[in-house]
Amino acid sequence: MSELINLSLEQVHDLALRTLIGNGMGEDHARAIADTITQGQRDECHSHGLYRVLVCVHSLRSGKVDPNARPTLSRPAPAIVSVDAHRGYSLLALQTGLPLLVEQARELGVAALVIRNCFHFSALWPEVEAIAAEGLVGLAMTPSHAWVAPEGGSQGVFGTNPLAFAWPRAGREPFVFDFATSAIARGDIELHARQGKPIPLGWGLDAEGRPSTDARAVLEGAMQTFGGHKGSALAAMIELMAGALIGDLTSAESLAFDAAAGATPCHGELLLAFDPARFLGGALEEGQRRAEQLFAAITGQGARLPSQRRFDARQRSARDGVWVAKTLLDDIERLAA
Amino acid sequence: MSELINLSLEQVHDLALRTLIGNGMGEDHARAIADTITQGQRDECHSHGLYRVLVCVHSLRSGKVDPNARPTLSRPAPAIVSVDAHRGYSLLALQTGLPLLVEQARELGVAALVIRNCFHFSALWPEVEAIAAEGLVGLAMTPSHAWVAPEGGSQGVFGTNPLAFAWPRAGREPFVFDFATSAIARGDIELHARQGKPIPLGWGLDAEGRPSTDARAVLEGAMQTFGGHKGSALAAMIELMAGALIGDLTSAESLAFDAAAGATPCHGELLLAFDPARFLGGALEEGQRRAEQLFAAITGQGARLPSQRRFDARQRSARDGVWVAKTLLDDIERLAA
Repeated sequence: MSELINLSLEQVHDLALRTLIGNGMGEDHARAIADTITQGQRDECHSHGLYRVLVCVHSLRSGKVDPNARPTLSRPAPAIVSVDAHRGYSLLALQTGLPLLVEQARELGVAALVIRNCFHFSALWPEVEAIAAEGLVGLAMTPSHAWVAPEGGSQGVFGTNPLAFAWPRAGREPFVFDFATSAIARGDIELHARQGKPIPLGWGLDAEGRPSTDARAVLEGAMQTFGGHKGSALAAMIELMAGALIGDLTSAESLAFDAAAGATPCHGELLLAFDPARFLGGALEEGQRRAEQLFAAITGQGARLPSQRRFDARQRSARDGVWVAKTLLDDIERLAA
Repeated sequence: MSELINLSLEQVHDLALRTLIGNGMGEDHARAIADTITQGQRDECHSHGLYRVLVCVHSLRSGKVDPNARPTLSRPAPAIVSVDAHRGYSLLALQTGLPLLVEQARELGVAALVIRNCFHFSALWPEVEAIAAEGLVGLAMTPSHAWVAPEGGSQGVFGTNPLAFAWPRAGREPFVFDFATSAIARGDIELHARQGKPIPLGWGLDAEGRPSTDARAVLEGAMQTFGGHKGSALAAMIELMAGALIGDLTSAESLAFDAAAGATPCHGELLLAFDPARFLGGALEEGQRRAEQLFAAITGQGARLPSQRRFDARQRSARDGVWVAKTLLDDIERLAA
């Protein structure tokens, strides 16, 4: 176990910001990304915390990402806000489109935000949480790289295709989930491969399409979706909604576009926002009360709400700061040099 | 095995229509339901075919459903079409709202149809297929009765909460899925209980919250969601979106409202429609091509698209008619008498 160093959230943010700018990223992009990295570290989602600085700089150095791209906004229809990221990172594009998404959802009841031509950066939960922070219900989905086989098949077609949802709760953290439609994150299989440890059946298939517990074989074969044919159907929906529908790459096209550079996947994203005030009108409080009864029925029997672990970590981090492996900090400092 | 009788689709429709009207249902309700029952029988979804006539008459006789309710339409916001079914069946309400949903989706890009106070009748696939028949992408969800425990819990909170999606394909059947977020349909567990057969682990828990292979024990305990915590999160989303957000009952409230009458669940439904022409503009054909490439990548490796079995049955039924158990026909004829 590597030595751990305690940092404040401000120190995390400063380190991320400084390193990204030092590696040629425009300040507005760097600031948007440093914000999200800080949120990831704060919530102890380590793969979306400071570790992402390494991934990000690797992607920048691959030459695929434009570190200074200016997102442009358009509105192809009243309920559709569209932001072209022009092959920059997604977060500045999200910031660019979010205010209009919120405005249109409040005006129309429902609205969609399409982000195109972006290198998608971040988990989806910070994005749907940003929608929920406006008192709206958020739904988000995005393809990735075609590593995941459809149920009944053996070759990668789908990405890990995450789906995220947030429901705003008065005076507290929203109800949020954010899950991959693959059985497990690719990073978990990579970790097992590095450690030479077997993986459970159900995570993936070898190159001949046989269920395998060999992490390396699965990385060369295909991952599986969660939940059998149902998860596979959801993964297909995400390819269609956040690929074909929005005029951007599917996971197979994105993998081809990457051409083995190993950069962050380049594709699009679809976010939806729903305004409970417009759906419920005078019955808004009744709807909120109903949601709270649902949450109480879940937690009252000892089950957990999704994201509860993250929210617990968030409280701890606000109080105590975060603990980061010294080796990771050293790696980041080397990039800054 | 009961004797099977061959019927044309017209005969199926006539029998359903006649029996429903004969049991006091208004003609427009009866016609909407007979249409959907015929579609179910045609696609060999037997639990949604003529068998539903029995369920429907049982619900009518429970006195909970108003067989002549007039749905009323309103538009709380430009992108929200709302139909109050006034405690009638859902299908006439769907027919009432669908034209405006389609119009608003074409106008705005995205629109929502809320159906409230309905006894939900039918699988969701006929509903999203009706949206896809207009060239739009459809998404639908509805709660049911609180039979399903959240992951990590042991008591029913969620319904079987189906989620359905349809993507229109030029000149052929759409890409469609429609699945329960429970591990299995409640009817399948009931069937095992009647036959005294064990059920697989993963379907449900006994009244003490222990995983069980005893169908009767699970019917008295709680069902489980598919896909562990991910399926559980989706089930919660459906309670929130198609319950709390639209000002209608959650599955727990719907079960309480039923008060052991055993009627079809009374609650609401949320449908969303997305217009690819508004999302894609001049790139519409490119988006459609992309979707077809995705489907080809799935079927090209020997995997199945969801609903393929139904579409095969649909072709067979159009050619050969359908085969119905004589015992079922006798039961229906008895209701008509």
